[in-house]
Amino acid sequence: MATYKAPIDDMRFILHDVFDAESVWSSMPGTAEMSQDLADAVLEEAGKVAEGIMFPLNRSGDEEGCQFDDGVVTTPTGFKEAFNALAEGGWTAFSGNPEFGGQGMPKSLAVLFEEMMHSANCSLALYPLLSNGACLAIDAHATEELKQTYLPKIYSGEWSGTMCLTEPHSGTDLGILKTKAEPLADGSYEITGTKIFITGGEHDLTENIIHLVLARLPGAPQGPKGISLFIVPKFLVNEDGSLGERNGAVCGSIEHKMGIKGSATCVMNFDNAKGWLVGEENNGLACMFTMMNYERVSIGLQGLGLGETSYQSAVEYALDRTQGRAATGAQNPDQAADPIIVHGDVRRMLMTMRALNQGGRALAAYLGLQLDIAKFSEDAEARAQAEDRVALLTPVAKAFFTDRGLDTTILGQQVFGGHGYIREWGMEQMVRDVRIAQIYEGTNGIQALDLAGRKVARNKGASMAALIAEIREWLGTEKGKLGDLSEQLEEALVLAETATANLLEQAQEDPNAINALAVEYLDIVGYVLYAWLWARMIAAVDGRDDEFANSKRITAAFYYERLLPKIHSLYAQFKAGSKNIMALAADQF
Amino acid sequence: MATYKAPIDDMRFILHDVFDAESVWSSMPGTAEMSQDLADAVLEEAGKVAEGIMFPLNRSGDEEGCQFDDGVVTTPTGFKEAFNALAEGGWTAFSGNPEFGGQGMPKSLAVLFEEMMHSANCSLALYPLLSNGACLAIDAHATEELKQTYLPKIYSGEWSGTMCLTEPHSGTDLGILKTKAEPLADGSYEITGTKIFITGGEHDLTENIIHLVLARLPGAPQGPKGISLFIVPKFLVNEDGSLGERNGAVCGSIEHKMGIKGSATCVMNFDNAKGWLVGEENNGLACMFTMMNYERVSIGLQGLGLGETSYQSAVEYALDRTQGRAATGAQNPDQAADPIIVHGDVRRMLMTMRALNQGGRALAAYLGLQLDIAKFSEDAEARAQAEDRVALLTPVAKAFFTDRGLDTTILGQQVFGGHGYIREWGMEQMVRDVRIAQIYEGTNGIQALDLAGRKVARNKGASMAALIAEIREWLGTEKGKLGDLSEQLEEALVLAETATANLLEQAQEDPNAINALAVEYLDIVGYVLYAWLWARMIAAVDGRDDEFANSKRITAAFYYERLLPKIHSLYAQFKAGSKNIMALAADQF
Repeated sequence: MATYKAPIDDMRFILHDVFDAESVWSSMPGTAEMSQDLADAVLEEAGKVAEGIMFPLNRSGDEEGCQFDDGVVTTPTGFKEAFNALAEGGWTAFSGNPEFGGQGMPKSLAVLFEEMMHSANCSLALYPLLSNGACLAIDAHATEELKQTYLPKIYSGEWSGTMCLTEPHSGTDLGILKTKAEPLADGSYEITGTKIFITGGEHDLTENIIHLVLARLPGAPQGPKGISLFIVPKFLVNEDGSLGERNGAVCGSIEHKMGIKGSATCVMNFDNAKGWLVGEENNGLACMFTMMNYERVSIGLQGLGLGETSYQSAVEYALDRTQGRAATGAQNPDQAADPIIVHGDVRRMLMTMRALNQGGRALAAYLGLQLDIAKFSEDAEARAQAEDRVALLTPVAKAFFTDRGLDTTILGQQVFGGHGYIREWGMEQMVRDVRIAQIYEGTNGIQALDLAGRKVARNKGASMAALIAEIREWLGTEKGKLGDLSEQLEEALVLAETATANLLEQAQEDPNAINALAVEYLDIVGYVLYAWLWARMIAAVDGRDDEFANSKRITAAFYYERLLPKIHSLYAQFKAGSKNIMALAADQF
Repeated sequence: MATYKAPIDDMRFILHDVFDAESVWSSMPGTAEMSQDLADAVLEEAGKVAEGIMFPLNRSGDEEGCQFDDGVVTTPTGFKEAFNALAEGGWTAFSGNPEFGGQGMPKSLAVLFEEMMHSANCSLALYPLLSNGACLAIDAHATEELKQTYLPKIYSGEWSGTMCLTEPHSGTDLGILKTKAEPLADGSYEITGTKIFITGGEHDLTENIIHLVLARLPGAPQGPKGISLFIVPKFLVNEDGSLGERNGAVCGSIEHKMGIKGSATCVMNFDNAKGWLVGEENNGLACMFTMMNYERVSIGLQGLGLGETSYQSAVEYALDRTQGRAATGAQNPDQAADPIIVHGDVRRMLMTMRALNQGGRALAAYLGLQLDIAKFSEDAEARAQAEDRVALLTPVAKAFFTDRGLDTTILGQQVFGGHGYIREWGMEQMVRDVRIAQIYEGTNGIQALDLAGRKVARNKGASMAALIAEIREWLGTEKGKLGDLSEQLEEALVLAETATANLLEQAQEDPNAINALAVEYLDIVGYVLYAWLWARMIAAVDGRDDEFANSKRITAAFYYERLLPKIHSLYAQFKAGSKNIMALAADQF
């Protein structure tokens, strides 16, 4: 059976030993209250929530799924009680704004908590995570009155939030969406249209659901610059904060999906629903991106979290299941066979999972710290640098964590052999659950395009150059601790630079280049970043000779030998250009 | 929605233009009746069966699944009628021995028919395919009386067959299986034990089910050399061929699986079931391998077939779905957006699928022809060479086709974006269905071990050297038709040789090397073989300037630029050796 224990030791190591997060937190008033001890206590408690409240409902939630009956959505047995327990513990307000009842935890801790939630039960995790994203957008762009009305109730878990973007004919291309908003005399709007794929659009976990809806005002410009953002609550809210009339926001049906079956994916019909503008008119996409950037990191963590659970489960199975003999001779001569962890191919799978999960966790924590600096630093330059880094790395985290999440959950399932294909063991669910993370919140192809186009080509590689400069600076100080890896990391950096230069060159001459080559480019960046983070982990155990330090060294060596070399073939593919990708006429396919 | 049309044009091209199959067939008495025209007619009819009878039940079969009630298994609605139609058309006897009612079709045609069946409905396909494999083992190893009793009824589709190997504690490691066979006075045996994961172990498609069961005789040697093979029918067969008493072979339950839900995966309880020995005592594994080698190729084709359906469906969607604008400017200026096939990243996915599917189809046909030569040639040396080639390539076909089948079905699902995750579109089913093909019939890790250990290291690379020599000989004749690709193919051959030499060297010094490195080795061999087959396809269109020829050239160029380079990173990973794979203590994972 699948098993999960929050990897607190590795999280503490990454936060404290690798990044010295406390020194970052203590340097900024917004996070100054956070200390190493407090962070450890929070992680311990978070681990208990994930293991004890969320994980036990993961398998049953998948089997039972969400049910739809005439506009009413019922979540799987136990989800409501678990959600309430999360809310009571303050976990639904984890990194929320304290001004409105949030816990104000730094993002560098939140990424670790989110990883745990996805590890334990990503269907259940999506309800609070979407709500948190909605709060961010409201907090950043709505009026004080709207904030006061909605934020405290969402943070408290009494209400929840959604993001309503996609329409049947408009997904990746939001510029062509059709939902309409008509201004009313009282300053509110009437929203009419159909949205699809709305996570948590309807459910029984909270008494109200607050939709953030993209729609067009009359006479708005065509395309993405004519879209505005609205708050549309399921129940209107009276002056005193109590619930009023039912609004015209109704769930028409729920989707039958490959996975995340405990998460209600809704068709939402808005029929003259009353809504309130968030931010400026026609600036809705920018406002929504406050939420989407948050969600993209969080969805990346879905890949990482499921990879961790798959890894832990596969390790347990590989230690327990006996089959065949070690190549070096029987390890359990008194039994009929040895545990399969003796076999090189089983270890290859486990080590791959381990190297990717731990490398990804380090990148998530790094990104979390950058998000903290971008939000809380008093130094404008430091904020600007961190914002630039976050913009660059968000698409990498979303796509690379989830693509590698598919790799790792497939490997974990493979370790189980035939049992991996049987539902009751739980390994195939992780593959089904992780698969959506490569698709929603902008497909991974779109993430790659965002990276290669907006974040790299648009500023002529300046953000990427700044990142590589940071890594080189670190390497200059720390290379004495790295042995052979130092040179390999420098080579990987050179390849990343060469690929970036090549991308800029190709993009100048070939309008198709970025779209055709972006995925390989993102993968190169991802593998190079993990190489840096593995180097940082090695540097952090320098001088130690304990088991933990030793296992980090072995896993780092494995990463450099068996995973980093992929960048060479990726670059060979990449530099071939778009010609043969674009050459076939559409009717020849 | 998913769509499927049998790719007859490509199949004809590969059979006739690439391999001149007719000249092979006409040179051997067993296949002399097959001609190009007859083959084309068979392919046309086979395509109708796949498209018209099997494919329409694919989606509904997945939703409905198999039902179990007190030992009785009901297949999805329509499966029985479809199976009967296959039987009436002689399709259940396609490559069966004509002496017992088989159609005697060459394997080079059968691989194409099997690809179609898997493309159309792999759950339904498994029933006749397992039956065919059982017939092969019976035909090769059973007594004349057993053959006369069982083969005609299985070929006719009145009865079906299974292979019963796995037990709860014994899967990959068959040497430790426990099912017992006690000899009876009348020359038959009593079989007792539990088998799991038995495809088609019980169902409602045929009036009798003939199990091939591995079991131990009293006093048999420990391990794989103490296993015998038995025929165990569900209903005993009277002298006159009519059905007699119910035998003690009963389905205890069926598995709830990730996919292939229309295929009944059974726990089979044998309780003093009457059985008959097939082949020599204690030689059961060798007899079963007659069946397993056949099934391994067939399961490889499951990967290929599903990849083809995913490709065709993704192309149709990419031509129809409009979203965004081409990088070179609007292609449909009168509509709100262009079809997504204009985008480089969508094309990257489609071209990857196309290159892998068509390359794989060519390898399947090549392997089919080698199987024909091994079986039908009158030249003993030609038979021996072909047998050697088949032994070498069977694990490659099984693992590489199915691993690439996961890649391609994932890509096809990704082209659909969010719709790819919704069950009704059918794209996620292909991912779920293909996933088992990497696991059953020997996991792909086991296939790689078979290749690297038994087929390469054991004969010091002689079989691989013979294959490379054949490719070089071909290249010597044809390189004038290949342009740049000739040199790249030669480089790939050198890398395959280097990897083989490195494997032999590592294996000599390190007992863990083969197990730890086999998967990368198999992938190198697979990518190099596809490079050869793409070269053969290019050579076959030499001098032609039509659309078909042009699309082959573009796809070949794409393959060489974007997929073949993977061999370099695979080799870098491979040559790093097993040290860091094996270094972590089991309790450090």
